[in-house]
Amino acid sequence: MTAPRRTPGRRPGGPDTRGEILTAARESFAEKGFSATSIRAVARHAGVDAALVHHYFDSKDDLFVEAMALPIDPRQVAFRILDGPRDQLGRRIASVFLGVWESADGQQRMKAIFRSVVSSDEVARLMREGISEMIIQPVARALDVPDATLRVGMVATQLIGVAMARYLVGLEPVASVDLQTLIDRLAPVLQLHLTG
Amino acid sequence: MTAPRRTPGRRPGGPDTRGEILTAARESFAEKGFSATSIRAVARHAGVDAALVHHYFDSKDDLFVEAMALPIDPRQVAFRILDGPRDQLGRRIASVFLGVWESADGQQRMKAIFRSVVSSDEVARLMREGISEMIIQPVARALDVPDATLRVGMVATQLIGVAMARYLVGLEPVASVDLQTLIDRLAPVLQLHLTG
Repeated sequence: MTAPRRTPGRRPGGPDTRGEILTAARESFAEKGFSATSIRAVARHAGVDAALVHHYFDSKDDLFVEAMALPIDPRQVAFRILDGPRDQLGRRIASVFLGVWESADGQQRMKAIFRSVVSSDEVARLMREGISEMIIQPVARALDVPDATLRVGMVATQLIGVAMARYLVGLEPVASVDLQTLIDRLAPVLQLHLTG
Repeated sequence: MTAPRRTPGRRPGGPDTRGEILTAARESFAEKGFSATSIRAVARHAGVDAALVHHYFDSKDDLFVEAMALPIDPRQVAFRILDGPRDQLGRRIASVFLGVWESADGQQRMKAIFRSVVSSDEVARLMREGISEMIIQPVARALDVPDATLRVGMVATQLIGVAMARYLVGLEPVASVDLQTLIDRLAPVLQLHLTG
């Protein structure tokens, strides 16, 4: 492995260091995808020591969440989904995601990500890798049913479609139905995807 | 109403007339949306007689299908969905849509529409109006269940999400699972949306 390069004269922890690391992370993720990007590679690209990246970000997942301006930390999503009775999985999933998307900030970030995903193959690859490793795979492992990964993937399709229809396309009556009705419609369908 | 204007010297049925009408239709739809656009308005915009538009296109719906290069005629979709036993609605819907999207031409057109919808508010409005009037509402009327329009709208969200995940984002394992498995997963979920 190559030793991290240091840009001469750059402050090791100046006010812009965190931002510079995030920019380097975005570029590294875009170039190599999620799986092939390491903290060390981001540090090298940013011209700082890997220890400094670790000072600001606990893990590669952290870096990804911040660099992509995700509306919510995917690991927290996985935790909140799995924490509760199994026969209420569908309802928890609907509540967690719609709760985030109904907030102004969450909705804005989600829309920005959707637009990037559709217009850029690199962002699409990055998001599918990140979502797969941080949400789909952990939830599938915890489920312990046959075809768990496909089941969780199908849940993802249903959520993606609701996001598109309600927030990006404005397809009625999905776009203006009240939140509780929408959660009530989604809950049994998501449950069927997972355990039916 | 204003009498249709004729551009002096334009051939009433020359080789480009059909194309010119389609261009005028696209512009009219984009400007006014689906509902507010009439055959008469498209004729006026194209500088031809309304009868000539009717010579090439039976109806406004026809014009829309051609102008937007839809992968399949939405009225045909509605017919094929409704034609058969009620407890197999979910399976027919999955088969009809995935059948179109798995074909090279259908998939290419669908992707182009998705990209336009996400990047242009006008196209989004146009598509949501067109899909609503030509598929969602007729199918909902035929269903005869409470909340039929919302139910059919929820089916649309599930289909939109599968299209996004499988064809535009490449989210695994949904992207590469075989078609029959995907239809088998979708059928009961779409059925639950409609009649559950």
